[in-house]
Amino acid sequence: MANSKYEYVRLFEQSDTLLPNTWIVVRIDGRGFTKLCAKFGFEKPNDKRALDLMNAAAKAVMSDLPDISLAYGVSDEYSFVFHKACQLFERRSSKLVSTVVSTFTAFYVHLWPTFFPETPLTSSPMPTFDGRAVCYPSHINNLYNTTFWALVQKGGMDSVAATDLLKGTFSADKNEMLFSKFHMNYNNEPDMFKKGSVVFRDYELVDPKGYNAAEVADSQAEPPTLSKSKEESDKKRRAKARITAEHLDIIKDDFWDRRPWLLTGQPGTLPKQL
Amino acid sequence: MANSKYEYVRLFEQSDTLLPNTWIVVRIDGRGFTKLCAKFGFEKPNDKRALDLMNAAAKAVMSDLPDISLAYGVSDEYSFVFHKACQLFERRSSKLVSTVVSTFTAFYVHLWPTFFPETPLTSSPMPTFDGRAVCYPSHINNLYNTTFWALVQKGGMDSVAATDLLKGTFSADKNEMLFSKFHMNYNNEPDMFKKGSVVFRDYELVDPKGYNAAEVADSQAEPPTLSKSKEESDKKRRAKARITAEHLDIIKDDFWDRRPWLLTGQPGTLPKQL
Amino acid sequence: MANSKYEYVRLFEQSDTLLPNTWIVVRIDGRGFTKLCAKFGFEKPNDKRALDLMNAAAKAVMSDLPDISLAYGVSDEYSFVFHKACQLFERRSSKLVSTVVSTFTAFYVHLWPTFFPETPLTSSPMPTFDGRAVCYPSHINNLYNTTFWALVQKGGMDSVAATDLLKGTFSADKNEMLFSKFHMNYNNEPDMFKKGSVVFRDYELVDPKGYNAAEVADSQAEPPTLSKSKEESDKKRRAKARITAEHLDIIKDDFWDRRPWLLTGQPGTLPKQL
Amino acid sequence: MANSKYEYVRLFEQSDTLLPNTWIVVRIDGRGFTKLCAKFGFEKPNDKRALDLMNAAAKAVMSDLPDISLAYGVSDEYSFVFHKACQLFERRSSKLVSTVVSTFTAFYVHLWPTFFPETPLTSSPMPTFDGRAVCYPSHINNLYNTTFWALVQKGGMDSVAATDLLKGTFSADKNEMLFSKFHMNYNNEPDMFKKGSVVFRDYELVDPKGYNAAEVADSQAEPPTLSKSKEESDKKRRAKARITAEHLDIIKDDFWDRRPWLLTGQPGTLPKQL
Repeated sequence: MANSKYEYVRLFEQSDTLLPNTWIVVRIDGRGFTKLCAKFGFEKPNDKRALDLMNAAAKAVMSDLPDISLAYGVSDEYSFVFHKACQLFERRSSKLVSTVVSTFTAFYVHLWPTFFPETPLTSSPMPTFDGRAVCYPSHINNLYNTTFWALVQKGGMDSVAATDLLKGTFSADKNEMLFSKFHMNYNNEPDMFKKGSVVFRDYELVDPKGYNAAEVADSQAEPPTLSKSKEESDKKRRAKARITAEHLDIIKDDFWDRRPWLLTGQPGTLPKQL
Repeated sequence: MANSKYEYVRLFEQSDTLLPNTWIVVRIDGRGFTKLCAKFGFEKPNDKRALDLMNAAAKAVMSDLPDISLAYGVSDEYSFVFHKACQLFERRSSKLVSTVVSTFTAFYVHLWPTFFPETPLTSSPMPTFDGRAVCYPSHINNLYNTTFWALVQKGGMDSVAATDLLKGTFSADKNEMLFSKFHMNYNNEPDMFKKGSVVFRDYELVDPKGYNAAEVADSQAEPPTLSKSKEESDKKRRAKARITAEHLDIIKDDFWDRRPWLLTGQPGTLPKQL
Repeated sequence: MANSKYEYVRLFEQSDTLLPNTWIVVRIDGRGFTKLCAKFGFEKPNDKRALDLMNAAAKAVMSDLPDISLAYGVSDEYSFVFHKACQLFERRSSKLVSTVVSTFTAFYVHLWPTFFPETPLTSSPMPTFDGRAVCYPSHINNLYNTTFWALVQKGGMDSVAATDLLKGTFSADKNEMLFSKFHMNYNNEPDMFKKGSVVFRDYELVDPKGYNAAEVADSQAEPPTLSKSKEESDKKRRAKARITAEHLDIIKDDFWDRRPWLLTGQPGTLPKQL
Repeated sequence: MANSKYEYVRLFEQSDTLLPNTWIVVRIDGRGFTKLCAKFGFEKPNDKRALDLMNAAAKAVMSDLPDISLAYGVSDEYSFVFHKACQLFERRSSKLVSTVVSTFTAFYVHLWPTFFPETPLTSSPMPTFDGRAVCYPSHINNLYNTTFWALVQKGGMDSVAATDLLKGTFSADKNEMLFSKFHMNYNNEPDMFKKGSVVFRDYELVDPKGYNAAEVADSQAEPPTLSKSKEESDKKRRAKARITAEHLDIIKDDFWDRRPWLLTGQPGTLPKQL
């Protein structure tokens, strides 16, 4: 069914195109990982080998799918962010989700022996993942989302409860809430277990003075329409960039302001070869 | 986000529940398999090892997900059929698609060395698959669909052209069309390359005399509501059934009438142990 | 935005095409009718003038939109049924719903003075309606639905409770349930207040002996593809048919078997002129 | 089906909730107005009475549905804008569309004799409208949209062609394009026929110096969560505001900067009584 573009409108395949000009986040979750952890003796609550394998698979996904701007992982869960101008697969949800999930799974299984050389996989249980796509009309780095996710991910609260709790609170309250409820001060968090991992292309950092990445991205009122040659050179720059997994504080604006390519979608400057 | 059932209604995750009482078909397709076939020297147009690996992965998927009634594969494509009464994952499209795609991919990569012992996988290209879910309000074994798919799959016609061609034709014309256009007589087709593979649970065959599986399934006006104990015993029977991959003619009613469990969703009789 | 068929895929308008080969029911409900009833002194619990106005508006809708097979009304609510083969507005949900709601509202307001000559409408409150489209993969005349709707509409039960109650019951129990819970024997129900109104095109009745309309409709495995001349003559026959509002028992098969055009979608025989 | 909130998830009614935090535009179009115009002798290409009737109906809709921030009408078409934080009807598309369409139709038919006293409506053709909802993740007042709509509405271009034409152009080119292609300079446009009508609540204008409404609205990173008493007082202020229809230039930022309530969703200051 590859020859005709719109056949699904006429037959039984229904359109699942995601709203244009929104950030697409494909989130994948390990299926039944409790059983897997038990069988292969993962250390609790975090196993370095397992997280390293997750990160390696995420980097491979991002290398295969250059449209992904950023990935963020915690535990057995990874979120892949596509820029709001992304047109990959005509923004069809099932195609985006299934491709990310399949690529992640393929590399996870393929790379398993590298990270767990002494315990080869067997048929049952196999590591598998499910996934879904969510659209966000605005940036993904605002404080509201952060606190929300902290409540959900670290506070063991479900998202409805978190939403209720946040109702009527203001920005000022939230840092307090993060600290008092979770004894957590993001600035001083120590490591990959607490901060999770963020995977991105590593261009030269920008001096954040007087620069606000969110504003710049917002001022792109119209989707960037590029000349063919610009598109080609962008593609090459993306392919040359090193993909890195770091354990940084993605809540502070500084992270985003120093890496404007994450929000603008324009590739940055490649670091000079040493 | 597993604790609360309806959070997606309130937040950004939008509902993608599939219409109740319809057959769900999750179809997966190999991504960029031309490159993969070239690299690993697949025989053209069909490679027995590659098809056997596809079938092995499909059987593993079906074993992991007992809600699947039937799977049908041709080339680098496989379709998994869920009964119209299926409630797995509350019929959420992204969850069904991603789980099938991930499980298939995991087994395909894991089983690769069994079928291609001399050419181990490398990082690029990795075998990956995309997928989508399609709902069908009526049975999947009617002649219309068959001819349609023959036109598409074997006639190299896209589905819009196929639909146009079929307009105004009647059942009588269709067998003729199958034969004259494609020199194909399903009854005499020789092998897995022509017929594709069908994967199903292998209960005792039923005498098709005076039995019409489609009618029986239709007469189930209401979705089967089972007692807990019946549900449990059904589950056990399904787990005990052997999952088999055959190369049968799924177009003739005989295939369906002898295997009523495929359309009714009720497990059949386990064959006696020899 | 009328010139290009698929622009909504590319821009912000998202597809809302309803699944092919399913029955589409557009249900409309009066908005804030309690206030309206109070202001214009409707008799409780049923006002003949108000129901007659509803029926007159429904007949006008059906006359304007020949694709509607049947309409069914109770209180301030009306359901309009489109045949599963219907292609009107390419089955776009918002277009179908808004057209039905707007046409119904226009006639309701326009015909108001005919039914309420002494109490002209004023700006507040104006009679308005909201609506939605629901797809059903199978016939709409089966017992399950009937009992379900009885529980909801007459038993004052919400639909979740009704679904729960019906779980585990079998066809035999249902007639009993209808009678014992609601002291209702459909065969002997007296009038428009109890049975509601059903609006349809009035062709010559068929002898139901040995005829099962549901089966005939089911056997139409493929959507009826008509020659242009057949389509034209069908259209004329539909336009000539009288549209009638009756208070009949739509639960018994007899209603449907004598009026096969309701399920097959083929116009019946026009009654001889007297 | 009013008692239970989520029954549609479990039964056949499928969720059509619109993406949170996006601007909802419900656009309605006259159905078959060519026939209507001919029958009632509308002046071409614009009939003042017909436009006045459209505006009167739009004002009535906005008065009935205080969640609407702004409405914009041209010819037989009207667009109603709901603020991105709007929660009316839980943002269900069919409910929003059908309510707007029904209310508009009811007032259009009801007010007809006021604007066309000498030509009363008859049953055929009745004025009816269809509608649809579209979500926009960003503001609706940017230049891109404006030029786009000018190309479509005034240039007689379909939206796909317009999109293509705009590709590769930059902001600077667009004002030029507006002028050269359409001999149109918005600043000097004369009247309701050219500019269309914009309907909004008329609070005290704000001094636009150093004020950018779009930025302010953007900085509302989280949806405004209001105390009950604030909500009540907002509601009262909205109810007291005069709803006006003007023929203003909505393209220039000045229109928006002087009326910040249109983008922020917070009611403005009521003008002093004279």
